[in-house]
Amino acid sequence: MPSIPTLSLDDAKRVIAAAEAESSTQGQPSNIAVVDAGGNLVAHVRMDGAWLGSIDISINKAFTARAFDTATKDLGDLAQPGEQFYGINASNDGRVMIFAGGIPLERDGQVVGAVGVSGGTGVQDQAVAEAAASAY
Amino acid sequence: MPSIPTLSLDDAKRVIAAAEAESSTQGQPSNIAVVDAGGNLVAHVRMDGAWLGSIDISINKAFTARAFDTATKDLGDLAQPGEQFYGINASNDGRVMIFAGGIPLERDGQVVGAVGVSGGTGVQDQAVAEAAASAY
Amino acid sequence: MPSIPTLSLDDAKRVIAAAEAESSTQGQPSNIAVVDAGGNLVAHVRMDGAWLGSIDISINKAFTARAFDTATKDLGDLAQPGEQFYGINASNDGRVMIFAGGIPLERDGQVVGAVGVSGGTGVQDQAVAEAAASAY
Amino acid sequence: MPSIPTLSLDDAKRVIAAAEAESSTQGQPSNIAVVDAGGNLVAHVRMDGAWLGSIDISINKAFTARAFDTATKDLGDLAQPGEQFYGINASNDGRVMIFAGGIPLERDGQVVGAVGVSGGTGVQDQAVAEAAASAY
Repeated sequence: MPSIPTLSLDDAKRVIAAAEAESSTQGQPSNIAVVDAGGNLVAHVRMDGAWLGSIDISINKAFTARAFDTATKDLGDLAQPGEQFYGINASNDGRVMIFAGGIPLERDGQVVGAVGVSGGTGVQDQAVAEAAASAY
Repeated sequence: MPSIPTLSLDDAKRVIAAAEAESSTQGQPSNIAVVDAGGNLVAHVRMDGAWLGSIDISINKAFTARAFDTATKDLGDLAQPGEQFYGINASNDGRVMIFAGGIPLERDGQVVGAVGVSGGTGVQDQAVAEAAASAY
Repeated sequence: MPSIPTLSLDDAKRVIAAAEAESSTQGQPSNIAVVDAGGNLVAHVRMDGAWLGSIDISINKAFTARAFDTATKDLGDLAQPGEQFYGINASNDGRVMIFAGGIPLERDGQVVGAVGVSGGTGVQDQAVAEAAASAY
Repeated sequence: MPSIPTLSLDDAKRVIAAAEAESSTQGQPSNIAVVDAGGNLVAHVRMDGAWLGSIDISINKAFTARAFDTATKDLGDLAQPGEQFYGINASNDGRVMIFAGGIPLERDGQVVGAVGVSGGTGVQDQAVAEAAASAY
């Protein structure tokens, strides 16, 4: 019987705690979301003062990173005008995010979920997401 | 300048932790969400094994309880055929939940947010939401 | 060349002012919206403290009252289980409201727009909408 | 208990009146919307003759300016192809507007809401929104 490796709520909480710590260090509050192997939300937090518009974006960056097993930053490169996935962000009812901050979470070479961060610049979001991914 | 009382991420985490504890006691995993005074998501968790379809429901039960400053269970009574709010669940792009599990969070007589729980029977969800609200 | 009688922004403001006055008298803050002959929003106000979930409902009660040239209260009677328009509230992307508070605005026997009120009980919303319509 | 500064309906009406005056001076009718600190609509007007398609745009420019505490014009610069937020307008169910006309409303250095204007060129919408913001 096939099975898919995935992550638990405890994993998600640990990943989010690491993101919160990095975000606090940067002094830029974030929205942080984790999805599981099915691309479905496991946990989300909006730090005090973080952008309201980033709730949706953090959740969908995580979705996107798992939906394509690709960091949203890298997908973004392929989604520019003239590139092979240009227009992909209109798919999936607008849930595909094509800018930095979404990273797949992997174990033993397999993607088991993803984290999405939104609330700062692309560079900030990426750094927070990387800190989060490192905690998995 | 007017201001509205709201809740913090720490408040939301405390509320969610209480919901998780009650849900574990029941042996029925839940999705749990907390929104702030503006009806915007502050935090969400899906306990291991909880229904996927309940992610959306928990978030929208919390939204509904703040959107109408009313428990979703009570709104549900008013939304039955022949009652005064029959059909309200088609409003707000389908985000209005009219069954048990969403409860406003109040302090000093003012609604400052809400909690939404989904994953079990109506009775279970309501009990988890009440345990959550008691922790605020 | 055919033309459709409609209402102006000044008309809408007068209608809304009357609704605000009645709502204040009742001590129950409302959302109030006016649409024109095309069913399109002309003006909306949310009184301080009125329900967040009623923004959408007030706008769509006004839309509905013009969309079917019928008070939403009356449409609601026809939309109960077993009645001829049962299920109509799933149409129009969920914009059809089937409970009290939306009233067509007429002049010389022609519907030129509508007002929608949401924020209280059905009886309250209807009374505020009637006061509003009387001011047109 | 935390609280967030917001604006009142009276504030919103004053802001809108200023926008209407500037719009009339320009001879270009506008849709004008104001949201509060929670990003939720407080008031909207469509001046006689203003574009129907701008109802949604004005409301969503205001939403966007509060959702990211940023003028939509500035967000637009960051959302161009190759820039760090390219694709952000697909988020939040298409509510993110990335062209001129949405401006945060601030007091004492805090964003308490936003105004959104649509109906003319980008230059016109921005001028009307700035006149509106000055009246807050």
